[in-house]
Amino acid sequence: MDGKLILGVDIGGTKSAVVLATEKGEIRQRRSEPTRPDLRGPLEVLERLAAMARELLTAENVTSGAVLGVGVSCGGPLDTKTGIVYAPPNLPGWESVPVRQFFEKALALPVRIENDANATALAEWRLGAGQGTRNFVFLTMGTGIGGGVIIDGRLARGANDLAGEIGHQTILMNGPLCGCGKRGCLEALASGPAIARLARESALYGRHRRVLTLAGGRPADITAYHIIEAAKEGDPFALQILEEAGTYMGVGIANVIQMLNPECIALGTIAVHAGDLIMKPIEAAVEEFAWKRSRDVCRIVPAALGDSGQDLAAVALWLTEPD
Amino acid sequence: MDGKLILGVDIGGTKSAVVLATEKGEIRQRRSEPTRPDLRGPLEVLERLAAMARELLTAENVTSGAVLGVGVSCGGPLDTKTGIVYAPPNLPGWESVPVRQFFEKALALPVRIENDANATALAEWRLGAGQGTRNFVFLTMGTGIGGGVIIDGRLARGANDLAGEIGHQTILMNGPLCGCGKRGCLEALASGPAIARLARESALYGRHRRVLTLAGGRPADITAYHIIEAAKEGDPFALQILEEAGTYMGVGIANVIQMLNPECIALGTIAVHAGDLIMKPIEAAVEEFAWKRSRDVCRIVPAALGDSGQDLAAVALWLTEPD
Repeated sequence: MDGKLILGVDIGGTKSAVVLATEKGEIRQRRSEPTRPDLRGPLEVLERLAAMARELLTAENVTSGAVLGVGVSCGGPLDTKTGIVYAPPNLPGWESVPVRQFFEKALALPVRIENDANATALAEWRLGAGQGTRNFVFLTMGTGIGGGVIIDGRLARGANDLAGEIGHQTILMNGPLCGCGKRGCLEALASGPAIARLARESALYGRHRRVLTLAGGRPADITAYHIIEAAKEGDPFALQILEEAGTYMGVGIANVIQMLNPECIALGTIAVHAGDLIMKPIEAAVEEFAWKRSRDVCRIVPAALGDSGQDLAAVALWLTEPD
Repeated sequence: MDGKLILGVDIGGTKSAVVLATEKGEIRQRRSEPTRPDLRGPLEVLERLAAMARELLTAENVTSGAVLGVGVSCGGPLDTKTGIVYAPPNLPGWESVPVRQFFEKALALPVRIENDANATALAEWRLGAGQGTRNFVFLTMGTGIGGGVIIDGRLARGANDLAGEIGHQTILMNGPLCGCGKRGCLEALASGPAIARLARESALYGRHRRVLTLAGGRPADITAYHIIEAAKEGDPFALQILEEAGTYMGVGIANVIQMLNPECIALGTIAVHAGDLIMKPIEAAVEEFAWKRSRDVCRIVPAALGDSGQDLAAVALWLTEPD
């Protein structure tokens, strides 16, 4: 075997996964199962993941001596220095859990931990849409809008690991309430739930019939995917909603361009699924709200890794040179 | 003499200065004169500055061997790698001027060049309000709102030296036209001219009598300083204008906190002169629009270097470790 292997642990609110990958980011083995934070405490979840990690090593017939390290990707807030995870919204019951320390003991390997948006940004930067750039920004565009920022070849973590919260910049000072408690955040205007809310509201008074049909006739069941599907069929109301969300997203991206002047911004989930239907309004808003000199050097593209981005996120913590 | 000296060249639209400073940022000699870009071409301006630099060396009786390097602070856009200055708005007639090359030849010394906001940010970080931090943001708050961003101990320049344009993030999508051509930029809402415009508009229909009196009765002569003066006297309209500008400034700062999670943000000129009259509304908006976890670790303070910040800006290019 040439080179060492990396263990990647992805702890999600719905499911968790452990992968064994090469130093080039090729996944050799993978195990995944529902996390069930409602039924299992943090320790039980972590012990399952450690057991799965050991299974992967056995399956590949490698000792821990062949492993460079363990990367853990987990919802924040968390402290990358102490390795403690503080009550992520998607992991109810996780209060100050010493995740890094746990894996260091359980697997007797060096462990790095990073919040999931930062870890996915590292993966997209090293293996996906951001390859070859020095200044790169990744934005998730799903349930929430998270972000990870690479500046001059290094992940920007900030004073206490909270840099990159691009989804919680203010776009409309008197805009809708965001899940975070603030008003008018980008996330409250352009995330999956924000898009679904726009459709749901107008479905209630008779518009968006196609979207409603796709959601089985129940307004409460409408998701961003129904809107994307209807828009792909040419439904004008669905197209209008994607245009509105894309415009807000474009303003938020323009602000990132003005502040950070990156060479590439990659957008996850919704941008990947909706393609031009959301990318075109994003580009139009960026053209209006960012300087030509800055946007001319910045590609705005859908994320390249797709679903494997999550698997590679934790692995990517060991692909980058340590600071 | 212990340690080497640094030559700092500040090229401004109104005046230019050359200073000779120690490696600790103590200014030993200084020469300054009006730039007059309307009367003198770039080459004439640069030759005067080189002559002034030589005068300083003679006055201190030092040879160029005792000089570590020359720092040049100049209005952007400019290219820090090639050292070429591209048509700064404050230097009419300067089209693609090879400033670094000029000083390298004229003074036979290594030269570094940086736009003025970035250079002042470096000075405030190494010698002023940002001392001891790893993540620091400086914002000018004068004729324009410029910015410089230090991330994890290094200046963030971006793909083509345009990072830190924090004054040209969008705060109001349908807001007033900015000098840059975009709409609703922070600079169009909270800079000196923006503050003066607010007062001027209401002075025209009878409010702001105190501000108008301070401006000699001529609405067109109102500047931000008249408003600060009237506010210090307790004039309610002037206070209201500073509160409005401070609120927009606070939203822009909150966005910086969300994206970059710095330990300190220092604000120049207007914040220094108006003090609490503008800092209080800024803080109130930051409390509303930034997360507690991020703002709790971030001091927001007036810049510490005052007028010497500009002199030290160019010097600071040699105080920082090269990347």
